[in-house]
Amino acid sequence: MPKIILSKIPTKAPKTADKKNYEKKTDDLVKKIGELSEKLYAERKSSILIVLQGMDASGKDGVAKRVFRDCPPLVVDAYAFKRPTEEEFAHDFLWRVHHQTPAKGHIKLFIRSHYEDILIQRVHSWIDDKKAAQRLDAINQFEKMLVENNETTIIKFYLHLSHDRQIEKLEERKSDPTKQWKHNDADWEETKLWDKYMRYYEAAINGSEQPWVIVPSDQRWYRNYFVAQKVYDVLNKLKPEYPALLNGGKTKS
Amino acid sequence: MPKIILSKIPTKAPKTADKKNYEKKTDDLVKKIGELSEKLYAERKSSILIVLQGMDASGKDGVAKRVFRDCPPLVVDAYAFKRPTEEEFAHDFLWRVHHQTPAKGHIKLFIRSHYEDILIQRVHSWIDDKKAAQRLDAINQFEKMLVENNETTIIKFYLHLSHDRQIEKLEERKSDPTKQWKHNDADWEETKLWDKYMRYYEAAINGSEQPWVIVPSDQRWYRNYFVAQKVYDVLNKLKPEYPALLNGGKTKS
Repeated sequence: MPKIILSKIPTKAPKTADKKNYEKKTDDLVKKIGELSEKLYAERKSSILIVLQGMDASGKDGVAKRVFRDCPPLVVDAYAFKRPTEEEFAHDFLWRVHHQTPAKGHIKLFIRSHYEDILIQRVHSWIDDKKAAQRLDAINQFEKMLVENNETTIIKFYLHLSHDRQIEKLEERKSDPTKQWKHNDADWEETKLWDKYMRYYEAAINGSEQPWVIVPSDQRWYRNYFVAQKVYDVLNKLKPEYPALLNGGKTKS
Repeated sequence: MPKIILSKIPTKAPKTADKKNYEKKTDDLVKKIGELSEKLYAERKSSILIVLQGMDASGKDGVAKRVFRDCPPLVVDAYAFKRPTEEEFAHDFLWRVHHQTPAKGHIKLFIRSHYEDILIQRVHSWIDDKKAAQRLDAINQFEKMLVENNETTIIKFYLHLSHDRQIEKLEERKSDPTKQWKHNDADWEETKLWDKYMRYYEAAINGSEQPWVIVPSDQRWYRNYFVAQKVYDVLNKLKPEYPALLNGGKTKS
């Protein structure tokens, strides 16, 4: 795979893309994803793990809400990884992650993920390069195991936001009463470390064996469409089907 | 509370109820439930535990899918209790249940629940009356603890289906290709025990301190409306609000 250089990948929708048209496309994809997810659940043959990574305000929660809204709550579940608890810290970094992986028939959304352990931790020099290399190796082995042993399809999205747009969105959080609860002083500290984050995101993306999808994320409508299209493509390729009647349904009361 | 006698409670919608009108009402309630659920999540003050019980084909999955479709997957999660694993059997009956209770800011749907431990287990005489009484007592203490210690609101729905309608719906599962995966010979065995189930459902409902909502469930549209109305009422009474800016939002990059 060619090396990914984030600064060379657009954060914006193509100029020709029409918002209304794309929102309609997204609606259509979301509905199809919902239908396919019910078949996936009925079939119980495979699972899907969706990793949502991106800088603060890049839209991880927004994607989870928009793209999977037609999937029943029994089928799709989202888990947001936060600062590890004391017990989690006392284990290896994949311990808590492993526990959250999807069972067959399910779609699991990781809002942040094990990748934080080679992102925020490197940016703040809580781990050195050697440790980071060990972890990346462990991540590759772990993801390989999931794919091979549990028929899990992994889709990893990097929500690619420009720094300017991030600042705008962080400001929005302060003025919009429905978003103020998301405002966090720490985010304003982290945004100063933007370039470092970009460097380590690139290292994580390029060092990871299971490929990433880089999602232009400056406009919410295009970001959601882009993710929905990819999720649909994967589900459609899996072709889950409702299982037929096991025993011909001959039993009667 | 007056004793509930299931045979005296209708399983059907009132004759005057108009399907189209009620479906519209449900759409409206579902949307409001979605909005309130996002506030509940932002506020992180309380949680909601929704227990869905009912005979096979009464519509537990259907309710989960329809009523909560506007709640983001990060906020709402459904868990279907199945036959306990060996490890679960080796613990008390509430062990696996406790693990699944909702954290603050979340809505958890139990599809079946700890009540099965005084339902199917009594119907098949796997436990005696004394054991059942002990368990009911433990359930009451457990639910009280959840309410008092974690600000959890518990809403328990019994999806009240007539026996005739159940048979119809079980037959449907055999002919509808999208439902054949739900067909299970064991259901046809269980339905023969209908009267026994009704007796023990009544015992569970009347012996439980946290009240139950009995939902007329013969028609899907009325059942969904009925549940949505109740969930909305509870959420609306909780009045979750988006928290205001903690520090006045003075920090800037």
